[in-house]
Amino acid sequence: MITTTTHLELFSATRKKTEEFCMPLATEDYVVQPVEFVSPPKWHLGHTTWFFEEFVLKNNKPNYSLFDEQFAYVFNSYYESVGEKVIRTNRGNLSRPTVEKIYAYREYVTREMVDFLKNNTISDELNAVIEIGIHHEKQHQELLLTDIKYILGNNPLLPAYHENFQEDLIEDIPQKWIHTEEGVYEIGAEKDGEFHYDNEFGQHKVYANEFFISNKLVTNQEYIDFMEAGGYENVLLWHAEAWDWINTEKIKAPQYWYKLNNEWHSYKLNGFEKINPNAALTHISYYEAFAFAQWKNLRLPTEFEWEIAQEKFNWGKRWEWTESAYLPYPNYKKAEGALGEYNGKFMVNQKVLRGGSIATANHHTKPTYRNFFHPNLRWQFNGIRLAK
Amino acid sequence: MITTTTHLELFSATRKKTEEFCMPLATEDYVVQPVEFVSPPKWHLGHTTWFFEEFVLKNNKPNYSLFDEQFAYVFNSYYESVGEKVIRTNRGNLSRPTVEKIYAYREYVTREMVDFLKNNTISDELNAVIEIGIHHEKQHQELLLTDIKYILGNNPLLPAYHENFQEDLIEDIPQKWIHTEEGVYEIGAEKDGEFHYDNEFGQHKVYANEFFISNKLVTNQEYIDFMEAGGYENVLLWHAEAWDWINTEKIKAPQYWYKLNNEWHSYKLNGFEKINPNAALTHISYYEAFAFAQWKNLRLPTEFEWEIAQEKFNWGKRWEWTESAYLPYPNYKKAEGALGEYNGKFMVNQKVLRGGSIATANHHTKPTYRNFFHPNLRWQFNGIRLAK
Amino acid sequence: MITTTTHLELFSATRKKTEEFCMPLATEDYVVQPVEFVSPPKWHLGHTTWFFEEFVLKNNKPNYSLFDEQFAYVFNSYYESVGEKVIRTNRGNLSRPTVEKIYAYREYVTREMVDFLKNNTISDELNAVIEIGIHHEKQHQELLLTDIKYILGNNPLLPAYHENFQEDLIEDIPQKWIHTEEGVYEIGAEKDGEFHYDNEFGQHKVYANEFFISNKLVTNQEYIDFMEAGGYENVLLWHAEAWDWINTEKIKAPQYWYKLNNEWHSYKLNGFEKINPNAALTHISYYEAFAFAQWKNLRLPTEFEWEIAQEKFNWGKRWEWTESAYLPYPNYKKAEGALGEYNGKFMVNQKVLRGGSIATANHHTKPTYRNFFHPNLRWQFNGIRLAK
Amino acid sequence: MITTTTHLELFSATRKKTEEFCMPLATEDYVVQPVEFVSPPKWHLGHTTWFFEEFVLKNNKPNYSLFDEQFAYVFNSYYESVGEKVIRTNRGNLSRPTVEKIYAYREYVTREMVDFLKNNTISDELNAVIEIGIHHEKQHQELLLTDIKYILGNNPLLPAYHENFQEDLIEDIPQKWIHTEEGVYEIGAEKDGEFHYDNEFGQHKVYANEFFISNKLVTNQEYIDFMEAGGYENVLLWHAEAWDWINTEKIKAPQYWYKLNNEWHSYKLNGFEKINPNAALTHISYYEAFAFAQWKNLRLPTEFEWEIAQEKFNWGKRWEWTESAYLPYPNYKKAEGALGEYNGKFMVNQKVLRGGSIATANHHTKPTYRNFFHPNLRWQFNGIRLAK
Repeated sequence: MITTTTHLELFSATRKKTEEFCMPLATEDYVVQPVEFVSPPKWHLGHTTWFFEEFVLKNNKPNYSLFDEQFAYVFNSYYESVGEKVIRTNRGNLSRPTVEKIYAYREYVTREMVDFLKNNTISDELNAVIEIGIHHEKQHQELLLTDIKYILGNNPLLPAYHENFQEDLIEDIPQKWIHTEEGVYEIGAEKDGEFHYDNEFGQHKVYANEFFISNKLVTNQEYIDFMEAGGYENVLLWHAEAWDWINTEKIKAPQYWYKLNNEWHSYKLNGFEKINPNAALTHISYYEAFAFAQWKNLRLPTEFEWEIAQEKFNWGKRWEWTESAYLPYPNYKKAEGALGEYNGKFMVNQKVLRGGSIATANHHTKPTYRNFFHPNLRWQFNGIRLAK
Repeated sequence: MITTTTHLELFSATRKKTEEFCMPLATEDYVVQPVEFVSPPKWHLGHTTWFFEEFVLKNNKPNYSLFDEQFAYVFNSYYESVGEKVIRTNRGNLSRPTVEKIYAYREYVTREMVDFLKNNTISDELNAVIEIGIHHEKQHQELLLTDIKYILGNNPLLPAYHENFQEDLIEDIPQKWIHTEEGVYEIGAEKDGEFHYDNEFGQHKVYANEFFISNKLVTNQEYIDFMEAGGYENVLLWHAEAWDWINTEKIKAPQYWYKLNNEWHSYKLNGFEKINPNAALTHISYYEAFAFAQWKNLRLPTEFEWEIAQEKFNWGKRWEWTESAYLPYPNYKKAEGALGEYNGKFMVNQKVLRGGSIATANHHTKPTYRNFFHPNLRWQFNGIRLAK
Repeated sequence: MITTTTHLELFSATRKKTEEFCMPLATEDYVVQPVEFVSPPKWHLGHTTWFFEEFVLKNNKPNYSLFDEQFAYVFNSYYESVGEKVIRTNRGNLSRPTVEKIYAYREYVTREMVDFLKNNTISDELNAVIEIGIHHEKQHQELLLTDIKYILGNNPLLPAYHENFQEDLIEDIPQKWIHTEEGVYEIGAEKDGEFHYDNEFGQHKVYANEFFISNKLVTNQEYIDFMEAGGYENVLLWHAEAWDWINTEKIKAPQYWYKLNNEWHSYKLNGFEKINPNAALTHISYYEAFAFAQWKNLRLPTEFEWEIAQEKFNWGKRWEWTESAYLPYPNYKKAEGALGEYNGKFMVNQKVLRGGSIATANHHTKPTYRNFFHPNLRWQFNGIRLAK
Repeated sequence: MITTTTHLELFSATRKKTEEFCMPLATEDYVVQPVEFVSPPKWHLGHTTWFFEEFVLKNNKPNYSLFDEQFAYVFNSYYESVGEKVIRTNRGNLSRPTVEKIYAYREYVTREMVDFLKNNTISDELNAVIEIGIHHEKQHQELLLTDIKYILGNNPLLPAYHENFQEDLIEDIPQKWIHTEEGVYEIGAEKDGEFHYDNEFGQHKVYANEFFISNKLVTNQEYIDFMEAGGYENVLLWHAEAWDWINTEKIKAPQYWYKLNNEWHSYKLNGFEKINPNAALTHISYYEAFAFAQWKNLRLPTEFEWEIAQEKFNWGKRWEWTESAYLPYPNYKKAEGALGEYNGKFMVNQKVLRGGSIATANHHTKPTYRNFFHPNLRWQFNGIRLAK
């Protein structure tokens, strides 16, 4: 558990960072929700603020008064056990509260939190909640970037977010297979003073067969080879649900890729550009990652293999799809009450991704960190590392 | 046909008026599209401008250069025969072009149009197109208001648009039945120097049976009586499709009505208020208008009866649902090319409304004006006048 | 009003005829419902029987006992005001009651009805209900044939219904325009001793402009010309909703048409055959009829024009789409209670068809008969007659 | 690998058994498909037959002629790489081929297979295919029973399948916790002469923590307690997707349960009866099994725990939901070609069930057998065994 002083610094830095990410946006960019899994930036700003108001200030800071009583049902996300919804609404339809009002809300809650952290003795239990709140906001920073990319990258004008944003990771080292012996390995996090989510805890033993994992990520060129070899047309490479999905959604290439004058281009946060063949592939679904591996007569690593071998390769620029389903570790315990909704309720029908991405907040990811998404989702900066 | 000078004035006044309607909006209000039939205000601003660029300036003004080549597919609405769409998109997902940019677009096109109107001899044919463009923009002024009402009225904060906006029409005169003799009547518009849409032309004879039409609109209180008598639960009052619709959509009251502390309230452009029982009912579908009439053992007038009798009662504050389907008049001719898409292509599965509303642009509606909507739509300021 | 004796004969003949239509079916053919608007033949057999049990025998025949109490909610169709549904079900999922049981039900109700008609004095009111019941069954005879065609014609084995069934009408007379003078005409049926539906009553005057109507129906060859001229690709010919529909449903030809070895074939009740170019076109939607007329620079007649001119041309082999929406005649009164659901509740969003078809029961259709369907439906034997 | 002689007996017995299961059906029961995951019995009869024709006889039996060339696309299920579909169709719409014809098809293929097995030397590879074909048919026997239950149990007449069919398993022994030590265990099947599916192979080591598993299944009474304690209303017990599912589908009790006169009843294959509180619960989804375990502060076992401990308790009457996702074992290899579609393509978004059920074919399930279904499916005879 980190100290309150560290909390104060980390809290302030995190709040500031979130706002910095939004600086390049026009007011209009804060508002739209082009697809259900993308949230409007203004909602991220409000929701991460509401977290501190709801779970920290409201019941703990003496004489705290809510910024606006109606904000609870506007910015509550999936915490079904908290609050009530009067008019059922869709985040992307909410023009009000305005962006300006939400910044005022942020400022108010940030100031109140700083005041609270400076002038109060905080219980260990509450400290843990504040720590979750900070890491919750760091998670939303990543979503903010990927959601902004979706919003701008699906606008017909394809406006750049920021010309200096660098997405590409050049993977031009020679491909090698890293070997790991069969045996029993420790997996998961211990209470070690650092922050971990509940889904990482319960360090436990796992038996792994001998395996080999690649030292590098799959590149754009390798994926182009797959496409040109008819990968999207060969039913035997795909899961049954994946085959339905690529046919229904007419998926023929990674997200944000467009063929222009017979050359592959893609939208990136710094604008619309030609594909760099040596850069690490990104914006593919688990389904595509799996089909690509099938085509290579290889496979994706499990999350355990990844965690066992991760010291021997570089990672952190792409969330790497694993073959593992997102399941509770043995003896997983979810938190009491509404915060128990944080992770456990998603432990079905999702796949684990390991690593981190160019959009992940600093110091947020770790070797034991378990990210998870539905197998068809592609808007995160994910990628493929092969195993055998 | 009005003269070019008049066009210039009417054009300038119309453009200005559209912008005045938007003055009370926050930037965010311009962006959202809560439901498919509502367009974001920024889209209305751009689309009415694109009309003049596409159908007037582009091919007629010497040396005209497009404000932005990409705007054509952003602001083209349903003119399927013009242009092409690169990324299929939904109006409510478009954060760019920004509102500021769209105002610059408006200013540019307005200035170019004024310059064009002042300094060029304009053919009768082109004059007709400009006239349609002006009236097209007036139609969008009404949609702008009703769409703003939908956007704000479905926001959980229920923000007012403008505190002085007056929606209510008090109908406190005694109810009387206006009598009309059986006979042959002239229906529709002649080329009379005033502007008419193509769907009004072709003046022609219609045979009407003797009929009686009410001198006043149905009030909120009368509709509350219908609701309290179980109107929404009595299947025999409803069309089959209407019954499915009210059950699927859980329709129990007019749009924007909410019961609070056992009293009916509604959202209006000036805010959330108690229902005035003597005001003319509004925001009901044709289906509800029909069921209400059935319950009264009366009926809705046809559009012909309405047109025949309209001199004998006051109208213009509510679009009045008629029993008539929206069909072409005998010898209806649609315009050549893309402008032919204006009216004719909607002449199926819609009902005619006659009159006008408190949101209708000045001098826009006329005794022969034919408005039309699908029978389930309620967000226009429509109402009920009974006949027998 | 026809006499009870005539009723008895007509009743018995109608019941028998319905069963004859089913003779070529395998038991399995009675069961399936490939699409919502098609009912399984066994349901038609049961539903037409239930009508007599529910509206005649149950409350009028002394000591009548229901064949099976549960059949009411199995065979009630849209009479929402009668009965209750315990398990919400879809007609096509009902394997029970078996076909054999339904024939037993028919036999029981037929016998009870005959007994009732022979041995009781029947009020005029009840006589009218029986008459409707008989005509209701005749309507279902036509649906039975078109539904059987849908069931067999969408089976990949394309089995014939009966090798002697003759669908084609050869239209090889020279095309002529039949002229009608402008004027006031009488439309609709009088109480004349013959059976009419409530939607035909209320004879009334209509004013018609001068018009011309074709002496013959559009042929397959004419429609092939339209297809080859790109009719399905030219947006300007179509209603907006029609354009969405043909693109969503990938409509490229009339229903049951397939191109084999570069020649058009179609499934007909006597089997799969090459198209006869001189036969009258059938199985097109109103949308396609309208687009075809647009392409010819002609139009469809209104139902009034059709009724005025019908004595001057042959009709009765194809239901002819008209431009008229299905609306109540002036002074239309629907019957009290559940039978009031018969026609009136469908008077929105449908188009009138006039004439009759090769599947229409003998003596069922008349010059004033108003058939109606949604504009996208094609499985009836409908066709096109042009006007100008 | 079993010998050809054994194959012959097993083949003949299996074919006969499938037909015996259908004896109580009316012809109509063979035809319907009330929901996508249920297949019509006639389809099961044809599909299991097609398997032998397609994968055995067609390419291996000298001079074999297909029973009917068109049956391939009628009875192919999900083998996307084989054959082609001319008219896209839904299994539940197919009245033809008739049931009689399908029995003739069965008889023909059975006879040809017997002849082939008797008079030919069969390669090991082909023998393996035949063995899969037999087990494939045994799997369909179970589906046949559960699909028949769905068809009859969703018919408003609730007809019994067979009065002697016994579904209930009385679990009236005292509840005990069976203890297993932490350690490394062997999981999966070896090539041991018995038949196993590809998904069981690759015996491998798994590390298990110490755990306890119940000696008995959850009973109806325990589940009623959960319902009465508000289990379906407490969001904290449910996965997020489960909560959406129970609310969208209005799930309030196990499938086939109905409350009548304030007592729980259910449809069983022997008819509609009162619930026996001591019988093992069945027809619940994984979502409900998980929520029930949460409510008990317990959990479901993993498939590995189940396999390790299974010798110490009775099983085989209910498929037991496990917490494990359906994933490939290490070194899983799918078969080449179309048979490779058998299992591997379903290894995403499904949960493993272990055990067997009262509908499982004799000698079909084993301690290593891995059944799998989507977490929302309830029509199999599944149940709950708790662990901690």
